[in-house]
Amino acid sequence: MAPLAASSVDSILVDLFLLLLAAKIGDELFKRIGQPAIVGEVLAGVVVGPAVLGWVEVSDTVEVFSELGAVFLLFWVGLETRLDDLRRVGRVAGSVGVLGVVFPFAGGVAVAAGYGESAGVVVFMGAALVATSVGITSAVLSELGLVRMPSGRTILGAAVVDDILAMLILGVAVGVASGSGADYTSLVVSTALAIGFVAFFALGGTRLAQRRPGFLKAPKFSESPLLPAVLLCLALAGVAAKIGLATIIGAFLAGMIVAETKEQYPIEEEVAPLYAFFSPFFFAFIGLQLEPDAYRDAETLSALVVVTVVAIVTKFIGAWLGARPLGGRNAAIVGVGMVPRGEVGIVIAGIALEEGAVSEQFFAIVVGMSILTTLLAPPALRALVARQS
Amino acid sequence: MAPLAASSVDSILVDLFLLLLAAKIGDELFKRIGQPAIVGEVLAGVVVGPAVLGWVEVSDTVEVFSELGAVFLLFWVGLETRLDDLRRVGRVAGSVGVLGVVFPFAGGVAVAAGYGESAGVVVFMGAALVATSVGITSAVLSELGLVRMPSGRTILGAAVVDDILAMLILGVAVGVASGSGADYTSLVVSTALAIGFVAFFALGGTRLAQRRPGFLKAPKFSESPLLPAVLLCLALAGVAAKIGLATIIGAFLAGMIVAETKEQYPIEEEVAPLYAFFSPFFFAFIGLQLEPDAYRDAETLSALVVVTVVAIVTKFIGAWLGARPLGGRNAAIVGVGMVPRGEVGIVIAGIALEEGAVSEQFFAIVVGMSILTTLLAPPALRALVARQS
Repeated sequence: MAPLAASSVDSILVDLFLLLLAAKIGDELFKRIGQPAIVGEVLAGVVVGPAVLGWVEVSDTVEVFSELGAVFLLFWVGLETRLDDLRRVGRVAGSVGVLGVVFPFAGGVAVAAGYGESAGVVVFMGAALVATSVGITSAVLSELGLVRMPSGRTILGAAVVDDILAMLILGVAVGVASGSGADYTSLVVSTALAIGFVAFFALGGTRLAQRRPGFLKAPKFSESPLLPAVLLCLALAGVAAKIGLATIIGAFLAGMIVAETKEQYPIEEEVAPLYAFFSPFFFAFIGLQLEPDAYRDAETLSALVVVTVVAIVTKFIGAWLGARPLGGRNAAIVGVGMVPRGEVGIVIAGIALEEGAVSEQFFAIVVGMSILTTLLAPPALRALVARQS
Repeated sequence: MAPLAASSVDSILVDLFLLLLAAKIGDELFKRIGQPAIVGEVLAGVVVGPAVLGWVEVSDTVEVFSELGAVFLLFWVGLETRLDDLRRVGRVAGSVGVLGVVFPFAGGVAVAAGYGESAGVVVFMGAALVATSVGITSAVLSELGLVRMPSGRTILGAAVVDDILAMLILGVAVGVASGSGADYTSLVVSTALAIGFVAFFALGGTRLAQRRPGFLKAPKFSESPLLPAVLLCLALAGVAAKIGLATIIGAFLAGMIVAETKEQYPIEEEVAPLYAFFSPFFFAFIGLQLEPDAYRDAETLSALVVVTVVAIVTKFIGAWLGARPLGGRNAAIVGVGMVPRGEVGIVIAGIALEEGAVSEQFFAIVVGMSILTTLLAPPALRALVARQS
């Protein structure tokens, strides 16, 4: 009976308030010292979370707010993205995506094998290093006004390729860890599904929207087209999750479809407050998941440093190699832009732990690496962009 | 560890999507048949909830979304409300509030006593009939463009008075039910606190905002003033809950304060999408709580009819008597406008059940009454307004 849970609902509301307040304060402080606001928001999560003050707990509800933050963020980025722009960078984005997966995977496998880990751990370490948090990068790109630049488009396109490959690798990792080996038939099916989903909505969906640009108003919705657009966004996010992709891929595709409709501008204006409200939860939630107790022994700490360095170097080299046709500085921007592992690395570490394939120590290392790459890449990106202009 | 809960988070997201979709469909259908949209949204909750299809479960997260729906709704209504407007109707609103509490309380007590119930049940039935859902009424008023009319202002002012008195009665009810009797000292203290809170923010807060109309921008917030305003809203909602008032009273006061700042208009525009996104959850959640199994026996069903009739008649008479100075039709509008018990009746029934003071049957009757009054009042209000114009 819901009303009986009133007190737990109240405490969740307090958690949400504190997290939003902390994120806003972190945001403002970091802007004033000339640093990317989202780094301030992630650190705010570290401060109010179990790592420091312990004021805010990780709960399903907070995680839902975080997830919706990423969904509305990528929906908004999708609204700013035209299919043609992605097509123009398609080939480069493809090689960034592929090379940005191959190098980190090899790096992760090599490191874990070097530590003498079992096959399950080795594959999961590869999978965790493959992840790219397009949410983090998108936020930084939009803060720097780069979303519409070729480097920004390339990162977005590459992230979609990345996510499909990451899903594949994660499937293999779960198969290996469970001991039954990977089920290659189902992997082929789910990869085909994922590619089909992206192609269908990226190509068919946007074309349909171009032909019937009033479709969000088609059934004579009586008010603003915001809710139909949001429902489309949540639906595609849900389908994406169902077939093993990230929810944000669905949200991004939904944004691209809505961008082709007559309602693009009113919707962009109305989505902005939703994005402003929810996205701080996304960034702060990443920091909330840090549990510093895990890093007290020197062994874990040194492994964290090694894994983080490998994660940064391999992703940068892979993405940079793929992006070379864009020219030196743009390639460097793409390389750095792909580095943050954000929530994706944390989610993969969680799956690995849930499968019983890895230790708590592995989990802590991957979470630490995800947070460190998320904190280090945005300032570097900012510095690169400043040098360029 | 949050990532491990990924599957439960996914299922919550599906629930939120289904609830929003159903609410939007209900909304559109009811608008097309010329009925208040919110009735369609409440019924949508009944349909997808355990009562009919069982697709959406009641969960903490869904309740948080519902609560935020009411909070942003009343924040928005507060943004449309000036202290002076409330002052102008102050005296009438006061008597509507008081008489709108006295009659239903007496009616509830009489009915429960007539059924030969214990003292605890009798007091709780009185408390449940006192409740007014200003959220439901506000939504209907704003749909009909009445928020700025004297009748609308009167209802808002009366609802604040109502909520303070309801808190007092609930305190007595809990005391009686626990057998220890009411703790009158703490009741006096909490009533004083509640009145002090309302007076301090309604008078002092708005005056402060008038004197420093740029205060939301004072610390040079770098972006839109939306988040500072939302944080103020959540903070006052939280304080209101802490001292025993409804969260929405705090949100309403925050809206009134922000209405006096320079940022009123941009904030109003930016809060609208938040309200549009969250409020369907508020309305649908009310319907979600209906469990029709409880009404299978004739005895419960007849008691439901009796209680509902008493709830409607006593609230209407009390509020109508108080509002007579506004003239016949306005008084009728106020009378009908105070009838919906909405979520407040359900919350009180939940507290009563939690205290062990009442049976499941009592709970079902009050929930049914709350939903019926919520469904019946808006069409009546609409008809009254149509006749008037």
